[in-house]
This record gives sequence, structure tokens and C-alpha cells, in this order.
Amino acid sequence: MNAFERWIPPAQWLKSYNKRDFTSDIVAGLVVSIMMVPQSLAYALLAGLPPEMGLYASILPILAYALLGSSRALSVGPAALIAIMTASFSSQFATPGTPEYNTIAILLALISGAILICMGVLRLGFLANLLSHPVISGFVTGSAIIIAMSQVKHFLGINASGNSLSEIIMSLSASIYATNFYSLAIGLVSLVGLFWLKKYFKNILVRVGFSSYIAGLIAKSGPVFVIILATLVVTTFALVDKQVLVVGDIPSGLPALAMPDWSFDLLKNLLPAAAILSLVGFIESVSIGQAFATRERQKIDTNNEFIGLGSANLIAGFSGGFAVTGSFSRSAVNFEAGAKSQLSGVLAAFIILLSLYFFTDIFYFMPNAVLAATIILAVTSLVDFKAIFSVWRYSKQDGIAMVGTIITVLIYGVDTGIIVGVSLSILLFLWHTSNPHIAIVGQIPGTEHYRNIERHHAEVHPKILTLRVDENLFFANCRTLEEKVSQLMAERTEVKDVVLMFTAVNMVDVSALESLESISESLKSIGVKLHLSEVKGPVMDKLKKSDFLEHLTGDVFLSQHKAITAITQSKVS
Amino acid sequence: MNAFERWIPPAQWLKSYNKRDFTSDIVAGLVVSIMMVPQSLAYALLAGLPPEMGLYASILPILAYALLGSSRALSVGPAALIAIMTASFSSQFATPGTPEYNTIAILLALISGAILICMGVLRLGFLANLLSHPVISGFVTGSAIIIAMSQVKHFLGINASGNSLSEIIMSLSASIYATNFYSLAIGLVSLVGLFWLKKYFKNILVRVGFSSYIAGLIAKSGPVFVIILATLVVTTFALVDKQVLVVGDIPSGLPALAMPDWSFDLLKNLLPAAAILSLVGFIESVSIGQAFATRERQKIDTNNEFIGLGSANLIAGFSGGFAVTGSFSRSAVNFEAGAKSQLSGVLAAFIILLSLYFFTDIFYFMPNAVLAATIILAVTSLVDFKAIFSVWRYSKQDGIAMVGTIITVLIYGVDTGIIVGVSLSILLFLWHTSNPHIAIVGQIPGTEHYRNIERHHAEVHPKILTLRVDENLFFANCRTLEEKVSQLMAERTEVKDVVLMFTAVNMVDVSALESLESISESLKSIGVKLHLSEVKGPVMDKLKKSDFLEHLTGDVFLSQHKAITAITQSKVS
Repeated sequence: MNAFERWIPPAQWLKSYNKRDFTSDIVAGLVVSIMMVPQSLAYALLAGLPPEMGLYASILPILAYALLGSSRALSVGPAALIAIMTASFSSQFATPGTPEYNTIAILLALISGAILICMGVLRLGFLANLLSHPVISGFVTGSAIIIAMSQVKHFLGINASGNSLSEIIMSLSASIYATNFYSLAIGLVSLVGLFWLKKYFKNILVRVGFSSYIAGLIAKSGPVFVIILATLVVTTFALVDKQVLVVGDIPSGLPALAMPDWSFDLLKNLLPAAAILSLVGFIESVSIGQAFATRERQKIDTNNEFIGLGSANLIAGFSGGFAVTGSFSRSAVNFEAGAKSQLSGVLAAFIILLSLYFFTDIFYFMPNAVLAATIILAVTSLVDFKAIFSVWRYSKQDGIAMVGTIITVLIYGVDTGIIVGVSLSILLFLWHTSNPHIAIVGQIPGTEHYRNIERHHAEVHPKILTLRVDENLFFANCRTLEEKVSQLMAERTEVKDVVLMFTAVNMVDVSALESLESISESLKSIGVKLHLSEVKGPVMDKLKKSDFLEHLTGDVFLSQHKAITAITQSKVS
Repeated sequence: MNAFERWIPPAQWLKSYNKRDFTSDIVAGLVVSIMMVPQSLAYALLAGLPPEMGLYASILPILAYALLGSSRALSVGPAALIAIMTASFSSQFATPGTPEYNTIAILLALISGAILICMGVLRLGFLANLLSHPVISGFVTGSAIIIAMSQVKHFLGINASGNSLSEIIMSLSASIYATNFYSLAIGLVSLVGLFWLKKYFKNILVRVGFSSYIAGLIAKSGPVFVIILATLVVTTFALVDKQVLVVGDIPSGLPALAMPDWSFDLLKNLLPAAAILSLVGFIESVSIGQAFATRERQKIDTNNEFIGLGSANLIAGFSGGFAVTGSFSRSAVNFEAGAKSQLSGVLAAFIILLSLYFFTDIFYFMPNAVLAATIILAVTSLVDFKAIFSVWRYSKQDGIAMVGTIITVLIYGVDTGIIVGVSLSILLFLWHTSNPHIAIVGQIPGTEHYRNIERHHAEVHPKILTLRVDENLFFANCRTLEEKVSQLMAERTEVKDVVLMFTAVNMVDVSALESLESISESLKSIGVKLHLSEVKGPVMDKLKKSDFLEHLTGDVFLSQHKAITAITQSKVS
């Protein structure tokens, strides 16, 4: 792979691209664009932004990702989680509905893009790993509930706001008297219709004779029929006169590329929010990309993903859109519709661009309530309470992190939720490793095997104490080892040699090295030698870089058996 | 050990306590108290508090620790690091020299005490482990520089303040024109005198006929002679009239126990500062206690330490003192002077109490400059730049954490320094583990051993890929494993079986479990089986709690050799 192919991933597949691939891409692109238009409008609504900003976020970002990203099936653009996070962060700096608010959302996309590109260049991809699966899962469940609740106002046709569950509910109940029952009817009927289509449409299509493939594609486009129907109802019965809220005016065409108003102070204040936004978006995107790539034995390059998604967000900001990421639902449809390359995405982007020029009149009468219904249906499938139980059963630690994240999201909103979740999972992990399993081992009689004396019938030499540490030795747990040795020495006054068995130790950091030194020093002061056994190559290489081995009172043995043999022999002689 | 002995550690040694132990304790107590009186005054000065608060912090806290703490040699009371942290935190809430400032310092001691007791009760001791040695070492070095610089104003006899190096220097240079040259002379001469005594006094005493033990004890009391001399100079030449600043009035006797003015809001705001203060104090104290306990084959109980140090801080607050911890210099003197139990501490407390009733007149003319000189000499021995090089050579990662902490302490002050240090070391640790060593292993011909093919001449079956993961599998690194498998599968299209060798895996959290599930799922979709080998007991127990094993396409083998044998046989048949 040359440098050009490394930075421009399409160059890798373009050579073997053929007519059949092209036909597949055309079909997939068409299907995806049909899903994408209403989704873009709905997620803009969810983010508290003018509908056209959703469309802007769906055009140039796709092209940027197609050029620089490495996944071939990923559909980049507006997505529910990123939209609600955009809303949550932007509303901390400006009032929704104002031009300032829109500017904040655009800046968030720009800064996120810049952060992602930086992370790619500085190879900081590991930061994305700080989000553990239970935290992400808890975050998604909590956010889905918040998102669904935030859409209720569109059903009721009232104004409401809030980032946490209680804020939203209070805000809703404050204006519930003003409920517009036409909106409510449209919303509820749409929701039932969408649910029904999702559940039965494909089967019905198959039964009337469509092939399973075609039936699947049409069924995925189901929401469009409901949206069109709802729009027709609004126009036919002139419901706008009855105060039913609709998408309304959308300026025709794409705006000129522009940098929004900004100041250094504003950028600095938005930085933490943009960092969280970019990490969550990146994880969402790369997990989806990975899943589909493996199915085709293709590779996802994390670096390309950072650059690809980063450029997509950057261009989203410059073209007046908000933050984007890979969408699971659209990527799945894209993949199933047979997308062979990002050309399907390019086509989808082109169709959305056309719609911006020719269909904005159609969008005018689209009721907000039907868009809210599509969002609610989409996110409720993300709520996964069953996962709590299976996670809890497997590991209390992960369970606490997950439940803690859900609760924090619901009580304090999505932004605090993700920060608390990450801190919680890191602390719980460190807590877990801070209490390493340290076993006293003895010899299985008649063998050269040494095992935990509590689990096996093993013999122990009264003057030798062997401890096996079943964890890496680092700052979070080295003090525990010191305490353990100190305690055991106070109990076993006859012991003259201590052997630390390093079978499971892959790492000894400076803190642990100093702990080992202090253990050696303390033991020396009471006439006890410290030995090591079964030290792995890389760990030994490291130890040799320090002067620990020079000060060590005992020896380092290749195997535990050699250690015991040598020590007992030295005692006899 | 019964419950009484567990909670009141002195009960453990009181039974075997004898007359000789008592004599030793008397001598040690005397020597320590001679050191402690000027130190208490000096550290109160360092904390920006009235001198008597240092004495208050040296009486009842010792008694509380003697009753509830588990170290017999530890000298609890004011200490340099805790004093500068008290100054740094308190000055964020009030102006030094005001009664409000003193109240904040008292509240910090109270809250720290409460936090320590809570951590003991809730067994949150692992939180202290979050401070890695390089971070502590960097923190101590940085703080020592800040402390030394903060004392320069007492040499110059001017007013200055600031928490960071640049703030202090700017503040000093703003009033340097007002330098009092009498103060400066006293300070510099004292510093030279103290330095000379530290270096040569013991040897001289030995040469004139004292035993090494007695010479050592007298030499440790050396600073007292310098302080007395400086005080005499001030009184003799009436230097107070020349504006030389002295300790001044100290109210005679101990104040009544009292709770300072407080509000919930204030407590809430002080909480993070108190938490950091208590953790740093605890680590300082417990490491010192541990070091001396092991030398005597005694045990330190972390729980007793939390309760003991917590009560000491609580009572320090109630008796009008500031936060306390174990002091290394005094504990070392106490231990070397032959202290057998905390009775030496009790005696020292009693002597300090007496001095509060009878010697306050003597303290009046003690010049601040000589106290500043004792502080500067004490802390400069803590500055350890050589450690940076040895840490850096052993591990870049630890080196970055250390240098980062020093620089942050110098630029932003001690409080930000410690937070950045901890975050840095956690992030760097996670970064390290997020890139686990994953080796492709093959069979050493003619043996049942399987080794890294890059390090050994090992044979690999073309249709079987075996990966050994040399790290626990958890959220920070499971994505890396997914990527690695995905990449290798894209490169090796002939592989039909993947074996993951779990020799070094002690933990598989939910994130890793889900990664394994998704690897298994992805491999299944391309007709490849996933197997595990050499899974440890506790890990296997965990896996059985999930439904992972039911969905696993391959098998779990006890040993890698069994895995390879079984898989190759199934291919033949």
C-alpha cells in the first residue's frame, strides 16, 4: 500500500471496481437517500435546529467521508445520539431557536472535526477506549429515554425544553393545557402506523409475492409512506390553520461555505463539549464500520476513521450543518441493499442535494409530530433494560458503572452522564486491580508444579514463603503487595526466604519497582532474602534498566522449581 | 485479636510493655518534643496561620492517633506538605491573616478527618493507591520548590503571596525594595548555620567523646540551638524596633474545644480540597508508618490508620489547629531515639502543652526568618531531580507523569498539580494497557510448547491462527483485540480456526466479553470458528455466568496443545 492509498482509501478498491458493483451502489444509494431525507429533518428538530441544517449535514460530510474514511458501508450523517448531545451542549450556551444557538451547534461540529483529526494525527485513538461497553450501553439507554421524552412536546404541539428527565417533565406539564389535539392525533396515529409497518410490512410484501430482498428494501422505506400520508392529511385539511406545527420554510439550495462567528473564549468554552461529542461520535461510527467490515473481510483503519469522520464534521460545520457520525440504521440498510463502496453514499448525497433544490415545497407541510414519531420509534429500540440484568449477573462492577450512567443521564442529562460513567468505570477498574489475587503457593508433592495452597494439596517449606501475584504490578496495587508481605512476615517469624512468582506479571511500573525495592529493603533489615521467579522476558528487560537487581538480596530464577531447589540446597550446605 | 484490640491498637502491645520500654519512650518523647515545638511554629507560618495554631495541632491529635492508630513510631502533627496545601486551598476562599482564613484552615482539618474516617469505614483505601510513586515524587519536588520560594519573603521581611512559582516571584519583586536587611542577615546566617550543623555537628560531637547514639540525638536537636541564638540576637539588639518580624504574642494555654462557624455551602465547596488533603496526608503517613513497622516486624492496619489519622485531624480541627499527618523527619528521630510505643508521642504532646502555658514569652522574640530557614533547609532535601532521570530511563510513561506533575505544580500550584498528576498517570496507564502485546504463537517443533513466532522458531498450521493476549482483557483494550483479529483475518484468507490463548488473562470484563462475542459472531459469518485455550479458573467461572460459551462456535481447551491436536484431527476426519 503506497501513501496515496493509505490516505485515500477508495484508491484501494477503485482498481477492482466493476459494473456490477456500480449497479449495487446505485440501488443502495437510492434506498438510503429515501431514509435519510426525513431522518435529517427529524434529527435537526431533535437538536433544536432549523430543518435545513439536517440536510446540510447530509451532503458534503458524506463526500468527505467517502474520500477519506475506510468503511465502505458506513452511512455518515445526522444521528439521534449526536443530535441530542448537540442540543444538550448548545443549550448551555444559547437559547434554542436563536441564531446564536445555531452558531454554537455549527461550531461544535467544526471543533469536533478538528479534535478528531488531531486525535488521528497524534494517535490518541486509545481515548475512545475509555468508554466501556456498559457505560456506552447505559448512556444509550438513558439518552434514548431523554430523547423520546423530549419529542413528546411535538406530539402535544407545545413548547418545552430541558436536559434532564425532571426538567423535561416539569416543562411539559407547565404548558400541557395548550395541547393541540390535531398534533396529538397525527403523532399517535403515525407512531402506531410506523410500529405496525416495522413489524408486519415485510411479511405482507413477501406474502403478496415480492422477493425477500425487495420486500426488505421497501419495508425499510416504510416510514416515508407514513410521513407522506401525514403531510397529505395536513395539506388536505389545512391543519396549519389549526396551529399544527410543520417543518415550514426551507431555503432552497446549499449555503456558501462559511466560517461562523467565533471568538477564542467561545472556542475554549466549547472544547470539553466538543471533545465528548467527538469521542462518542467516533465510537458509534467505528463500531458500526468495524461490524460491517469484518463481515466482508475488509479492514477498518482507525486512523483513516479519525481523519474521515473528522473531515466530515469539519465540512458539516463549514456548510452550515451540525455534528455527524455513522448511523447504525442507515448503514445496515446500505449494507443489506448491497452497497459495495462509498459511491452509494455519494449518490445519496446527490439526491439530498437535489431535494434541497426541488422538494423544499413538499417539506413545508410535513408535521413535526410525524417526525417526532419516527424519532421515538427509532430510539425506543435502543432502550435495553434487560442488558442491566445480564451485565449485573456477569460483573457487579460493570453493573454499577452501567446503572450509574443511566441514572446520571436521567437526573443530570447526557453530558454529565457520560463523564460520570467514564470516571466510574475507570475508578471501578482501578479498584478491582488494586486488590490483586495474591496466592501463597506450594509444591504439589512428587511434581515440579506449584499451586495455590488454598485450592490444592500443596506442600510448603516452613522457611520459604512463595507468593504468586495474579495481576500486573503497578501503582494501583503495589501498596497492597507491600502490606501483604509485611503482614505475612509479622505472622511467620520463621520465614527466611520470600519468593515472588511473576507468572502473570506483564508489567512492573516505577511505583511497583519502588515497592519491590522497599520490600527487599525491609526484608533485608530482618535478615530475610527476596527472590523472584518466572519473570517474563519484557519485564526482565525493564528490571535490568534499573538498579533493583543489584540491590536484590536474593536471586532471580527462571522457574519456581529451580528457585525452591536452589534455596533449600543453600540451606543444607 | 478481639474487637477491642482491633479498634484500640495499643491494647495489643500494652500487655507486654515493660519498664525498659518506658525509659526508651521517655527519651524519644523528649527529643521529639524539642524538634516539634519550632516545627509547629514554622509550619503554622508556612500555612499562613497564627503560630499557636501549629502548637494546637501538635497536642490533642497526637493523643487521638496514639489511641486509634496502629504505627508505634509515627510522629503525627504539622508537616510541610500539608501546611502548604492548607495555605493553597485556604487562600482560594479567604485572605491570609484574616479570621475567615483561619476558620477555613480549621474546617479543612475537620472535613479531612471526617473523610478519612469515612474512607476507613467504607473501605475506600484503594483511592490512596491512585497516587502513583512518580506523581507523589514529582508533587513533593514541585511543592518543595514552591514552599522554599514562599519562605523567601520572611528572609526579606516583606509581604508577598501566591500559589504558583510565577505568582510568588512577581509578588516578591513587587515589594523587594522594602527588604529588611536585619531579617535578611538573620535568615542567611541561620541557613548557613543550620546547614553546617546538619552536615558536621554529629561528627564533631563524636570526636569530642560522645557515643554515636547520643551524638545523633543532640545533632538532631541542632536547629533548636540556632533558633535560640537567633532569638537572643533579636532581644539583645532590640531588632523588633528595626521592623524585624517575630512570632509575637501567643495566647497562653489550649483553647476550649469548639466547632468553627460553618455553612453547608462552605462545607460543600471545601469538600474537594479536603479530599485531596486527606489522601495526600494519608499516603504520607501510611508510607512512613509502614516503613518503620516492617523493620520491627510489626503490622500496620490500613483501617486503623484511616481511623487514627482521621480522628487526629478531627480533633486538630476541634482544638483550633490545622490539618496534620505523619512527619517523616520526626518519625525517624522518634524511631532512632528508641521509641517503643506511642507513649513517646503522648509525652511529646504533654511537653508541648506545657510550653503553651510557660514558654510563650520565649517564643515572642523568635524571628520569622530563622523559622523560614528551618523550613527551607527541611524541604530542599525533598527536591529530587535525579529521580527524574532514573524514572525516565526505566519508563517513559512514568517519567511523563512525573515531569508533568512537577511542571503543573510550579505553574499552577500544588492543588492543580496533584489533580493533573493523578489524571495523567491513570490516562498513561490506560494508554499502556490499551495496546496489549498480542503475539501470534506457533508450536516449537517436537515439543508441546507454543511460543511467539517472532521470538522463536515455531511452526504455524496454515489454517489455524493462534493469538496470545498478554494482558487482562477489559474496556481499554478489547477494541484493540477486535481490530487485530479483523486485520489478521483480512490478511489470512485461508484461516478456518482462530484460537485465543488466555495464559495471561486474569480478568475479562463485560466490554471484553462483548468484544469476544462480536469477534465470534464476525468469524462465524465468514465460516471461521473461535476457540479459547488455557483459560484460568476464575475467568472460566465468570464466562460460565454469561451465555458466551453457548454461542461460541468453537471449543474451550485446557491447554494450547490439546486445542491444536483436536482442531487438526477434526480437519483430517
